[in-house]
Amino acid sequence: MSITTAPAQAPAPRGLAGVVVTETALGDVRGAEGFYHYRQYSAVELARTRSFEDVWYLMVQGELPSLAEREAFTARTAALRTLPDEVREALPAIARAGSGPLAGLRTALSLFGASAGFRPVYDITPGQRADDALAACAVVPTLLTALHRIGQGLAPVAPRADLPHAANYLYMLTGSEPDPVRARAVEQYLISTIDHGFNASTFTSRVIASTGADVAACLVGAVGALSGPLHGGAPSRALDTLDAIATPERIDPWIRERVLAGDRIMGFGHPVYRTEDPRSRMLRGIAQQFGGPLVDFAVQVEARVEAILAELKPGRELHTNVEFYAGVVMELCGLPREMFTPTFCAARVVGWSANILEQSADSKIIRPAARYVGPVPPHPVPAAA
Amino acid sequence: MSITTAPAQAPAPRGLAGVVVTETALGDVRGAEGFYHYRQYSAVELARTRSFEDVWYLMVQGELPSLAEREAFTARTAALRTLPDEVREALPAIARAGSGPLAGLRTALSLFGASAGFRPVYDITPGQRADDALAACAVVPTLLTALHRIGQGLAPVAPRADLPHAANYLYMLTGSEPDPVRARAVEQYLISTIDHGFNASTFTSRVIASTGADVAACLVGAVGALSGPLHGGAPSRALDTLDAIATPERIDPWIRERVLAGDRIMGFGHPVYRTEDPRSRMLRGIAQQFGGPLVDFAVQVEARVEAILAELKPGRELHTNVEFYAGVVMELCGLPREMFTPTFCAARVVGWSANILEQSADSKIIRPAARYVGPVPPHPVPAAA
Repeated sequence: MSITTAPAQAPAPRGLAGVVVTETALGDVRGAEGFYHYRQYSAVELARTRSFEDVWYLMVQGELPSLAEREAFTARTAALRTLPDEVREALPAIARAGSGPLAGLRTALSLFGASAGFRPVYDITPGQRADDALAACAVVPTLLTALHRIGQGLAPVAPRADLPHAANYLYMLTGSEPDPVRARAVEQYLISTIDHGFNASTFTSRVIASTGADVAACLVGAVGALSGPLHGGAPSRALDTLDAIATPERIDPWIRERVLAGDRIMGFGHPVYRTEDPRSRMLRGIAQQFGGPLVDFAVQVEARVEAILAELKPGRELHTNVEFYAGVVMELCGLPREMFTPTFCAARVVGWSANILEQSADSKIIRPAARYVGPVPPHPVPAAA
Repeated sequence: MSITTAPAQAPAPRGLAGVVVTETALGDVRGAEGFYHYRQYSAVELARTRSFEDVWYLMVQGELPSLAEREAFTARTAALRTLPDEVREALPAIARAGSGPLAGLRTALSLFGASAGFRPVYDITPGQRADDALAACAVVPTLLTALHRIGQGLAPVAPRADLPHAANYLYMLTGSEPDPVRARAVEQYLISTIDHGFNASTFTSRVIASTGADVAACLVGAVGALSGPLHGGAPSRALDTLDAIATPERIDPWIRERVLAGDRIMGFGHPVYRTEDPRSRMLRGIAQQFGGPLVDFAVQVEARVEAILAELKPGRELHTNVEFYAGVVMELCGLPREMFTPTFCAARVVGWSANILEQSADSKIIRPAARYVGPVPPHPVPAAA
C-alpha cells in the first residue's frame, strides 16, 4: 500500500528472492557450497548417523536427545500416532472426495486440529502449543497412509507403537513390516527432507503463525503450498521423465530436444544450489546400494543431461535436485508414485512445526505491501445500470 | 539463507512492513488520507451505492457489470450456493469437532475444493481457475451458516437463489427472511470488508497461489491466517469491551486504567491508518441509523477513548478501527458474536479469490530468505547415546 508505518521501500526482488524475513536458529542452506544444516549439524550427516526421532527432537527441542530423552520422546510420539475416532471415521468421506492424499491431508489435518482442540497463541502456553505441534506431526503419516489405502480400496492399517517412525510409516502404507534396508533408506530420505531454508511452504507456515493462529491452521496452509506444482509437485514427474526416455539410446535425442526447446527437465535445477544438491548426492549413494537397472539408467541419464547442458548451455550450473534420486529411492522402496509428495510432506511437517514454534515467539504479524498500478482513484462510481 | 540467486539483501523491516511484494490492480489503502479503494473506486462509495454482487464482479472481472452482466452473474453465483451432497453430509462431523465455524470452514472448504475437483494451475485454464474461485466464494456463506447452526443444535437452512447475496446470508443464518434495513446494513459491511491492502491472510493466499496450488489450498491457508488473534480475531472482543465497561460512569476509569497499564484497547488502532478508519466512519453512520442505547454508548466510549488518549498519549493517532462499529452493526443486525469473524471471512473470501487469480498470472514462486543465527556449523554429530 502507498503509506505504512514503515518507511517507503523500493519494490523487493520478484518473489522476495533473497529478502531476509526473519532470523532463525533452525538451519540454513549454503547454496554455493552445496551444504545445508539443521541447527549446527550437517543435515546429511544427521541422515547418515541418526534416527528420524533424534532429528525431530533436535528440531523442536534445540539439541540432540540423551538416551533417556530419546526413549521418552520415541514412546511419546509413538503413542500419538493413533487417530481419534471422529477423525478416523471421517477419512472415507475425505478420501472419496478425491484429489489425492495431499488434498485429503489438508482436510483431515484441519479436522484433527479442531477435534484435538488446538488453540491460538493467546489462549494456550508455549508448551501447549509445542504439544499441539507434536501431536500434528505424529498423526500426519497415519492420515496420509490411511487416505492412500482408502483411495486404493484397502482398509487403513493402524499404527504400531513398537516400530520406529519411518518403519511404521512403511508398515501403515503396505500392511507388512518393511525390511530393515528399505526402512533405513526411507528414514534417511525423511531426515534429509525435514527442513530446507525458507521455501514457500515453510514461509507460508510462518506467515500464518505470525497471526497467532493455531498450529493446524499453519500446517494446513503449508500443506496447501507444498501441493503447488512449483513447490512439491515434482518427485514423481522426475521418475516419469525416466519412463518417457525409456531406453539408453533414446537419452541423447530426448534430452537435446528438450534443452533446445528451452523446456525444463524435471529433477534438474534448484533455485539455491549452484553445485550438486547435497540431498541428491546422498540419495544417489542410497540408490546405488540397491543397484539394479533403474539405478543404472538414472545414473546414465544424469551424466548425459549434465554433459549435454555443459555443451549446449555452457556456464549454467544445472544438476540433479533432491527430486531426481528421491524418486528412484522411493520407487526402490516400494512407495507408489502417488505417495512421493505426501512422503516428502510426512517429513517436512516436522520442519514446519519447528518453524511455527520459532515464529510464535515473535509477536509481530507478517504484513508486507503491494504497489497499486491500476487507474488512479477515485473515479466516481457510476450509477447501477 | 546465506546465498541465493538474488543479491544479498539487508534484513527487511520486521514483519516485512512496507516491503513491496508485488504490483496489484485490485486496490490500495492510503493510510495517511483515511482512504481505500477497490480498483479505481472508493470502497466506501461502492458500499454506499452498489450491491455485493456488483463489487464481487468488479473485483474478479475488473469492471462494474452492465445490467445484463449483473443479472447473469447474480443468477450464476446464486446457483452455486448449494452444497454438493458429500460436503453437506460431512458438515455434522466437522461441526462436532468443535473450535467454531472458522476452523470448521477451514476443513469444509478444503473438502469442497477436493470434492469439486479443483486443480493446480498447470492442469487447468485460467478460466477454469476463475470458475473454481467463484464456486468457492459462493459456498462459503452456506458452509459458515450451516456449521454455526449445527453447532447450535439447529438444522442448516438451504440457500435461496431468489435472495441477494447478503440477504441470503442472513436468511441461512436465522432461517427467516431479513428485513431490508438489516440486510442492507450487512451488505454494506460485507462490501466494505472484501479487500484491504496486503494484510496477512491476503498475503498468505498469494504465497500459496505462487506455488500454483489449487484455489482451495490458497483459500484454506487464508482462512487459517484470518483465524489468528492478531488478524481477524477482534470484532467480537471490541464488543466485549463495551460489555465490560457496562455503564457510562465506568468509561473514564476503565479506559484510564487500561491506557496507563499500556494495554491495548480492542477496536482501536490500525497498522496503516493514521486517521480515522474510513470503514469505521461508514459503519458508525449505519449504526446511528438504527440508534438505541448500544449505539449511544459506543459513540460515548469512542469519544472518551480518543479524549483520554489525546491527554495521556499526546501525538499518538489512535482511532476506532473497522472492528469497533462492525461489532455494533452486527449486533444490531442480530448476528451472534461467534459469527462476527466468520461474517468478515464471508466477504474477504472474494478479495482473496481476486488476489489469487491475479497472483496466478505470475509464474514466480514467493520464496524469501532467513538469516541463520545459531551456532556456526558444521559441528560434528555426536554418536547416538
